[in-house]
Amino acid sequence: MAKEPKQLDELFHDTLKDIYYAEKKILSALPKMAKAAQNDDLRAAFEKHHIETEGQIERLEQVFELIEEKPQGKKCAAIEGILEEGQEIIKEFKGSPALDAGLVSAAQAVEHYEIARYGTLRTWAEELGLNEAKDLLQETLDQEEATDQALTELAESVVNQEAQAEAA
Amino acid sequence: MAKEPKQLDELFHDTLKDIYYAEKKILSALPKMAKAAQNDDLRAAFEKHHIETEGQIERLEQVFELIEEKPQGKKCAAIEGILEEGQEIIKEFKGSPALDAGLVSAAQAVEHYEIARYGTLRTWAEELGLNEAKDLLQETLDQEEATDQALTELAESVVNQEAQAEAA
Repeated sequence: MAKEPKQLDELFHDTLKDIYYAEKKILSALPKMAKAAQNDDLRAAFEKHHIETEGQIERLEQVFELIEEKPQGKKCAAIEGILEEGQEIIKEFKGSPALDAGLVSAAQAVEHYEIARYGTLRTWAEELGLNEAKDLLQETLDQEEATDQALTELAESVVNQEAQAEAA
Repeated sequence: MAKEPKQLDELFHDTLKDIYYAEKKILSALPKMAKAAQNDDLRAAFEKHHIETEGQIERLEQVFELIEEKPQGKKCAAIEGILEEGQEIIKEFKGSPALDAGLVSAAQAVEHYEIARYGTLRTWAEELGLNEAKDLLQETLDQEEATDQALTELAESVVNQEAQAEAA
């Protein structure tokens, strides 16, 4: 008998595992980014997002429960690559007034990956009639979008402060 | 003599090389995604974005020229990972009604990576007084955001059509 092609519920489950893995990686990367940050507001933003990420992981675990699956990660090459670039910036710009600008940039690449994934999962949850899951995913999506917006505002002030530091 | 720490102009140049590499990779991935697409509108969206990507690469080359540097890519682990996930979806969901939903998801991850990078570069260009570069980067950013929006709309219709196909 031919194997049945995979359906939307499997794509949903696969992508859920992908973002669950990604969130756990992000959770361990954030303290390193906070430690590297020179600007106090930027450090505070990373610390705040660390707490939010814990909540996001819990919500993902609730979604796994709703689809009667065990919470489980699946290696996500995208987040590995995105975080690797962040590590490179920390290394290459250590001691530079441009480090914070690089950290914001790395964090926004992470946020945008999450925004893409949660947007997709939310749409699929709705299609699959998983309304409770949809609401949980929407809650996280809103949080990620707010974080990205806050980083955009920080980017401008961080970059301006650096310019002043260089001119001093 | 101690090495001078790298400054914002070097971060700008590094990130420009990163997205230049990424755009070239995206340019070669898009025809594969168009070929895999089952939905005509989705295929057309990939073909349209292929043409747009050519223009985006040209604009990046103009930005290199404005900062008096040779257009050059720098291996970008993030885009490699993101595109690798897209390839996996094409392979794993071949023949499935969920394939198009997966392709949209992969494309949105790509778009969001670009949105993050162009947003950052645009902010830095402004700070560095590179106004012409800022306008070129803004033009591409607007295009990427419009593509992402179009994909979100497609996601819903693609997923709905698949649901109908399954019910038939």
